[in-house]
Amino acid sequence: MKEWNEECAVVGIYNAHNASVLSYYSLFSMQHRGQEASGISASNGQKISTYKNNGLVTKVFNKTILEKLQGKSSIGHNRYSTAGEDSINDSQPIFAKYGLGEIALAHNGNFTNAKEIRESLIQEGAIFQSHLDTENLIHLIAKSHRNHLVDRIKDALTKIRGAYALVFLSRTKMFVVRDQYGLRPLSLGKIKNPDGSTGYIVASESCAFDLIGADYIRDVLPGEMLVFEGAYTNNDVVPQSMQIFPPTPNPCIFEYVYFARPDSKVFGKNVYEIRKQMGVELAKEHKIQADMVIPVPDSGVAAALGYSRESGIPFELGIIRNHYVGRTFIEPTQSMRELKVKLKLNPIAELISGKDIIVIDDSIVRGTTSKQIIKILKQAGAKKIHLFISSPPTISPCFYGVDTPDKSDLICANHSLEEVRDFIGADSLFFLSLEGLKKSINSEENKRFCQACFDGHYIEELTGRKD
Amino acid sequence: MKEWNEECAVVGIYNAHNASVLSYYSLFSMQHRGQEASGISASNGQKISTYKNNGLVTKVFNKTILEKLQGKSSIGHNRYSTAGEDSINDSQPIFAKYGLGEIALAHNGNFTNAKEIRESLIQEGAIFQSHLDTENLIHLIAKSHRNHLVDRIKDALTKIRGAYALVFLSRTKMFVVRDQYGLRPLSLGKIKNPDGSTGYIVASESCAFDLIGADYIRDVLPGEMLVFEGAYTNNDVVPQSMQIFPPTPNPCIFEYVYFARPDSKVFGKNVYEIRKQMGVELAKEHKIQADMVIPVPDSGVAAALGYSRESGIPFELGIIRNHYVGRTFIEPTQSMRELKVKLKLNPIAELISGKDIIVIDDSIVRGTTSKQIIKILKQAGAKKIHLFISSPPTISPCFYGVDTPDKSDLICANHSLEEVRDFIGADSLFFLSLEGLKKSINSEENKRFCQACFDGHYIEELTGRKD
Amino acid sequence: MKEWNEECAVVGIYNAHNASVLSYYSLFSMQHRGQEASGISASNGQKISTYKNNGLVTKVFNKTILEKLQGKSSIGHNRYSTAGEDSINDSQPIFAKYGLGEIALAHNGNFTNAKEIRESLIQEGAIFQSHLDTENLIHLIAKSHRNHLVDRIKDALTKIRGAYALVFLSRTKMFVVRDQYGLRPLSLGKIKNPDGSTGYIVASESCAFDLIGADYIRDVLPGEMLVFEGAYTNNDVVPQSMQIFPPTPNPCIFEYVYFARPDSKVFGKNVYEIRKQMGVELAKEHKIQADMVIPVPDSGVAAALGYSRESGIPFELGIIRNHYVGRTFIEPTQSMRELKVKLKLNPIAELISGKDIIVIDDSIVRGTTSKQIIKILKQAGAKKIHLFISSPPTISPCFYGVDTPDKSDLICANHSLEEVRDFIGADSLFFLSLEGLKKSINSEENKRFCQACFDGHYIEELTGRKD
Amino acid sequence: MKEWNEECAVVGIYNAHNASVLSYYSLFSMQHRGQEASGISASNGQKISTYKNNGLVTKVFNKTILEKLQGKSSIGHNRYSTAGEDSINDSQPIFAKYGLGEIALAHNGNFTNAKEIRESLIQEGAIFQSHLDTENLIHLIAKSHRNHLVDRIKDALTKIRGAYALVFLSRTKMFVVRDQYGLRPLSLGKIKNPDGSTGYIVASESCAFDLIGADYIRDVLPGEMLVFEGAYTNNDVVPQSMQIFPPTPNPCIFEYVYFARPDSKVFGKNVYEIRKQMGVELAKEHKIQADMVIPVPDSGVAAALGYSRESGIPFELGIIRNHYVGRTFIEPTQSMRELKVKLKLNPIAELISGKDIIVIDDSIVRGTTSKQIIKILKQAGAKKIHLFISSPPTISPCFYGVDTPDKSDLICANHSLEEVRDFIGADSLFFLSLEGLKKSINSEENKRFCQACFDGHYIEELTGRKD
Repeated sequence: MKEWNEECAVVGIYNAHNASVLSYYSLFSMQHRGQEASGISASNGQKISTYKNNGLVTKVFNKTILEKLQGKSSIGHNRYSTAGEDSINDSQPIFAKYGLGEIALAHNGNFTNAKEIRESLIQEGAIFQSHLDTENLIHLIAKSHRNHLVDRIKDALTKIRGAYALVFLSRTKMFVVRDQYGLRPLSLGKIKNPDGSTGYIVASESCAFDLIGADYIRDVLPGEMLVFEGAYTNNDVVPQSMQIFPPTPNPCIFEYVYFARPDSKVFGKNVYEIRKQMGVELAKEHKIQADMVIPVPDSGVAAALGYSRESGIPFELGIIRNHYVGRTFIEPTQSMRELKVKLKLNPIAELISGKDIIVIDDSIVRGTTSKQIIKILKQAGAKKIHLFISSPPTISPCFYGVDTPDKSDLICANHSLEEVRDFIGADSLFFLSLEGLKKSINSEENKRFCQACFDGHYIEELTGRKD
Repeated sequence: MKEWNEECAVVGIYNAHNASVLSYYSLFSMQHRGQEASGISASNGQKISTYKNNGLVTKVFNKTILEKLQGKSSIGHNRYSTAGEDSINDSQPIFAKYGLGEIALAHNGNFTNAKEIRESLIQEGAIFQSHLDTENLIHLIAKSHRNHLVDRIKDALTKIRGAYALVFLSRTKMFVVRDQYGLRPLSLGKIKNPDGSTGYIVASESCAFDLIGADYIRDVLPGEMLVFEGAYTNNDVVPQSMQIFPPTPNPCIFEYVYFARPDSKVFGKNVYEIRKQMGVELAKEHKIQADMVIPVPDSGVAAALGYSRESGIPFELGIIRNHYVGRTFIEPTQSMRELKVKLKLNPIAELISGKDIIVIDDSIVRGTTSKQIIKILKQAGAKKIHLFISSPPTISPCFYGVDTPDKSDLICANHSLEEVRDFIGADSLFFLSLEGLKKSINSEENKRFCQACFDGHYIEELTGRKD
Repeated sequence: MKEWNEECAVVGIYNAHNASVLSYYSLFSMQHRGQEASGISASNGQKISTYKNNGLVTKVFNKTILEKLQGKSSIGHNRYSTAGEDSINDSQPIFAKYGLGEIALAHNGNFTNAKEIRESLIQEGAIFQSHLDTENLIHLIAKSHRNHLVDRIKDALTKIRGAYALVFLSRTKMFVVRDQYGLRPLSLGKIKNPDGSTGYIVASESCAFDLIGADYIRDVLPGEMLVFEGAYTNNDVVPQSMQIFPPTPNPCIFEYVYFARPDSKVFGKNVYEIRKQMGVELAKEHKIQADMVIPVPDSGVAAALGYSRESGIPFELGIIRNHYVGRTFIEPTQSMRELKVKLKLNPIAELISGKDIIVIDDSIVRGTTSKQIIKILKQAGAKKIHLFISSPPTISPCFYGVDTPDKSDLICANHSLEEVRDFIGADSLFFLSLEGLKKSINSEENKRFCQACFDGHYIEELTGRKD
Repeated sequence: MKEWNEECAVVGIYNAHNASVLSYYSLFSMQHRGQEASGISASNGQKISTYKNNGLVTKVFNKTILEKLQGKSSIGHNRYSTAGEDSINDSQPIFAKYGLGEIALAHNGNFTNAKEIRESLIQEGAIFQSHLDTENLIHLIAKSHRNHLVDRIKDALTKIRGAYALVFLSRTKMFVVRDQYGLRPLSLGKIKNPDGSTGYIVASESCAFDLIGADYIRDVLPGEMLVFEGAYTNNDVVPQSMQIFPPTPNPCIFEYVYFARPDSKVFGKNVYEIRKQMGVELAKEHKIQADMVIPVPDSGVAAALGYSRESGIPFELGIIRNHYVGRTFIEPTQSMRELKVKLKLNPIAELISGKDIIVIDDSIVRGTTSKQIIKILKQAGAKKIHLFISSPPTISPCFYGVDTPDKSDLICANHSLEEVRDFIGADSLFFLSLEGLKKSINSEENKRFCQACFDGHYIEELTGRKD
């Protein structure tokens, strides 16, 4: 169940007809990573045009606007909700004119030394027109004395610490960089243009490739920069790869737990399969008797399937989700206390009445949503609710691009398992162990993950703290 | 996959605080039965107020509008899409002033003799301001010489043939009727008011009860009329039941196949359980070897679970649905031919690549959507696609309230199973038999169903034709 | 200053390419007669299509909607504000299917025996789906046993008493009728089609003709019916005139005072010229010393010009109107008490400071607006304000199509001139006499006017009361 | 007639309850100076909040948004139309964080050395996120090494050449500056707070004062800076004046000709009175025989009154303006060629038919609008049209804040008076001489004006060219 604020989505398209339309569809397919604002920049080789506004992708853009965003290269961004009142300024891509011409930039992640850099830049006379970390980077690039953008980007990134998947658009080129820890996902794909030429796409998730008919090539590597050029000189476009930082992979394990779409390949592996395996591991770790396994839709579905398969307890889609949930107003009368969850979820009473139920969800943040879900299940007649969480307790906030609550609001950081179980009203409560989670992923390449939200061990170089 | 135009939804609320707000939430929970227009009438005992407009429930209504729809009784309606340009006039409830005062009416169904009645009424000088069959009924009531509305409704209904679930609102009462065949569903529930008094709800599907916290009592019976009065005289409200037509139950079997929400109880039985059983029967009838069973979301999910359980072939949620599909514009470039389906559905390539897949959907109408789904599955690498349909071939249009295409457009009505299979590109194609479908329902009370869409046998008295 | 709710506007277009587009522009030019809702019906010879909704003409219609309203004949309507919550139902044209086919009807005016007719129709079994008097007429036509629509309209109108300018659209013809008193205006014009053929327009005001390039022919006469046919048989279209009621002209004198646009010809005479003459007569009746004459914009402008010319006192546009007034929200802080008037009007302080000012307005209804205008003028430094009204005191409500307040709310009906003067805060207050008003019009043809709002003498046959 | 793109409007409010609401009303009253976008920044002493978007003031803001813009100080801006696709970025106020904290800035005018400064700033590593000159100024302030904002602003302005009325908001103070030539208007007013304390307003036009009930004090002087502080320390707020540049007044004469609202005081004088005097001078310069004088509404009204008074030829409001002009779509059929002007203006045919008419307008830009107006007047039957322009021919573009067309598009810059007369179809054409125009203003204080649009003499220090 959605309790996390998703991260952002980024996309870059290079050397493709109607690049901004491809960005639009890519952002649409990654809408789950950010619903607050959306923006696209496009270049026609001479000039970068940008449009961004608040709202869902399909609301922000229409045919007229996309027709103004002309050219063969384009980048785009979806933003998750923030509190700021001047939110249009805080949406991306950020566009700027600077010493070498024009630049637009879309960023997924978080700079851990953003405050220090910002203060230092401000001391030197820089102005900041948004609350975005990303603005730092444009300043650093603008202040670099190197003659080529590629070198300026490298220079600037040496000063930045943090998590980032970055897509830069200049008037004729596109630059793509992933931080050396590979914290945030970014994949590279190939577009077959109608005229037979080849275009390229980079996107946070590979579901964007599927929608526009692009083929997955590989992930952008931790510490790698890809440079795309040639679209405006009619040369063949071949992305040039440079390893600008030594790779020390620590990809975000939570992408597998919650963020990514199950049909996406993230960090080289399909999300659905991994989530199913989490359910398998969960069943291996915690075997209990029950009448059925039901997922909290949609986040718990794959793990519930895995749990059912391993345990032999039947899987049932026992909670139905209303797909029309938009902006309803809520009339808080006495009989409608749980309306907020009820507007979205409804259990099948005939199925669960009198039964012992294993409910699978991806994680617990504050505990309030779990509490409400258990309540409506009990009201529908469930005899016992055993809540199984397909990840360990989340005990530490994320500083690498996920909008988590403060530690004081993370229920598992402040309460024992028994206390949490009692608060949410479950008859029993189980979490997948960190070992089980990592076993689910079983990655050759990715032996290490950033799992700070579960164990509090941050990357020392980034956050300057060990625990 | 949605290929049918859903029927309408109706709701009636009696003797409840903020009745129009309860209608609003009920209509919201039944949004799947009609997305084109929505309307609510409410009475405060003196006067009926009505508001209706085009769009989804949450778009049509807001706090200001609902606050104007005052009173303890209310009815509401969701309409599915029609082609008419004057669609606001064609939305419901219909409101009229007539000889006994004021009346509002919401109808789910279809009057098979509507044309004859309309012509006859017009000959007598009546005017019709909409294209709705329902308008006939108001005229008949207005022209009746009986002194009480209850008698006028009975009189009028003796002249009407067809399928109907009707909710009438007068200034002080509410009348609810279901046709004698019980073709369209209508359930009765109880509302516990904050002050301890009892209110009532009738709705097309019981999912409406769940959202507003009402308790299911029973179905309105075929041929039964319920009269609600007393809300404005501070008497206890007890629905009075009259069997105004002899019941000859023939409920619409397609409600179980596609229309109803799985969490609803329809014709006294939970939809999800029946759909799961359809999958079981399908597996009993057609056993093949395959690597996995995947549903077309969301319509095929329950049947796929049943098929998997019976066959032992693993169930996988191999096609992911994008929940943000709204009004995108579609750029028909060469690489985007299948965009319409792709915007909504995306297969998990890693899961299905190289595999023999059993795909489960609820029905085939024109065959074009099935063709596109199979295409994207094959593009994602599926080796073989075996399409299993959890109902028999649909060979005849519905005249009882479902907006089906003409017989000439029903692919199974005009082509052999092999031809259909080849058209849609499946490696094999199987349908559940009619016997299997009825076995799934296994109803004591409902031994007979209207299954004309599958066998062409219409109810003779209604449609005047046997085949 | 706007204190009256305007009446409605009607338009009919016959035998013209894109008739609905011409209706649209005509309604746009007559927007001042009704801002609440707008509707257009069009016929292509086979079928009448209707679209109506709440809002200004330019908001209700767009290209897509007008393209659906196809055909060579069309009628349209603007409605003024009403209180009803079901206002879309109460907008016009009303469309109905009836014994002879299809009909749409737009009406400006009021039926004084509407209640009796409605009750009698309801007794006979008719249903009413709106609060519109106009619905009566469709019923009467539908119930007539005559074979031709023209005869049915005549029959029906013999039963109707009241004020009306009516435009009927059938699938192939258009019928236009004005009541025998000629209370509401209706003019006939000629459209020169691009192919050389002739089309026709009828409209409440001739400003509609100017916008679409039509030529004024003459007024529709009191008691006259015009029948237009031939558009769909490729015959020449020549309106046939029938005098269906003996003319007893009593046109509404208030059209000249306030309603009509100054550039319109109404009842055969230009409104601007007459309003200017009212100012002349006002100056003849009431001569005082003052520094300048300023109008309340825009309603007092022409009379102020006339007053200035006759009196020799300089005319100044001393109050400036803000053209961007839309839906502002008003924050009622202490310093903003008069904000409602101030948002629209601002006096030129430098011009009026320390001066004796003659202010000209068209009428006084409740007196509250006059009071506020005088207040802001005094705040701007005016020494003395002499309010001159270019019509007599309004002492009686209108029953013939104007939405006036009750008599109890008409300040001049309940208070002496001195009391009114003191209430509004003017130093002196003068009204034009009824004789002066009629002298201003100086009409050969129209010797008599309906001036009931000024003298309380209603048309006896219509209202059944003499005073 | 509107052919010029208006300039912008700025407002600043200091030490007033609900300062953002007062900004909102002020911007509403100055909507005529810019309709494309609107923005407001407000400070609560700790933090500056900003909201801006495209559209009219009443569309951009609502109660919820204004409630978020809290505090006792606020600035606002209306922008005229520009071509940029990223227009939200190009709207004002510009907000930035910088070395001394936070700043917001609204600007009316144009920096003539903006390009050089921008290039130099970019060379030094600055980034520009908008196309606004104003962004330069924030950079200069941010790069200054002075310790106080007041000194930084002074420093920055020494580098800026051009026309400006500037309002700066810091978290606790407000700074207001007008360029030394006083090219753009800016007035100071006093607000009486409900608690008896005094607040202040500066605005482009004094009509803003009238709406919110503020009292005009005086103009901000050329080269003057006003500093407002104390609102957040509960001290008395008294604006401190500093003459930061030696005044060499050259106010824009075109404000009197066209831009300002007639009810505003601009450069210390009321606009309406001056425009009326232009008509007087025009009549002194060019006496001809005619039947009447009519203005093009609303821009020619005051001059037409003056012309009439001096010449004795009657003034008539012979062209009526439609107040509902919004976004109509235009169907370019043959009979509707002049639709664009006709949608807005309609002559009174009865008044002008067969007459010799003097038409008064404020200026001629391209000549196309004048041509259309003359055409509709002739179509309405005017015998002769003598077009009188209440200003000299406009022969040079403005570089000081007005969005004029290129010199090549200014018809009077490229054609003789006879050619222009023939092109627009007038029977005669007269312009007010520059001497006549200046005589109309008859200003003691303002002996010199910027009249470059009429004589091509730019301010040498600003534009670096004499002719």
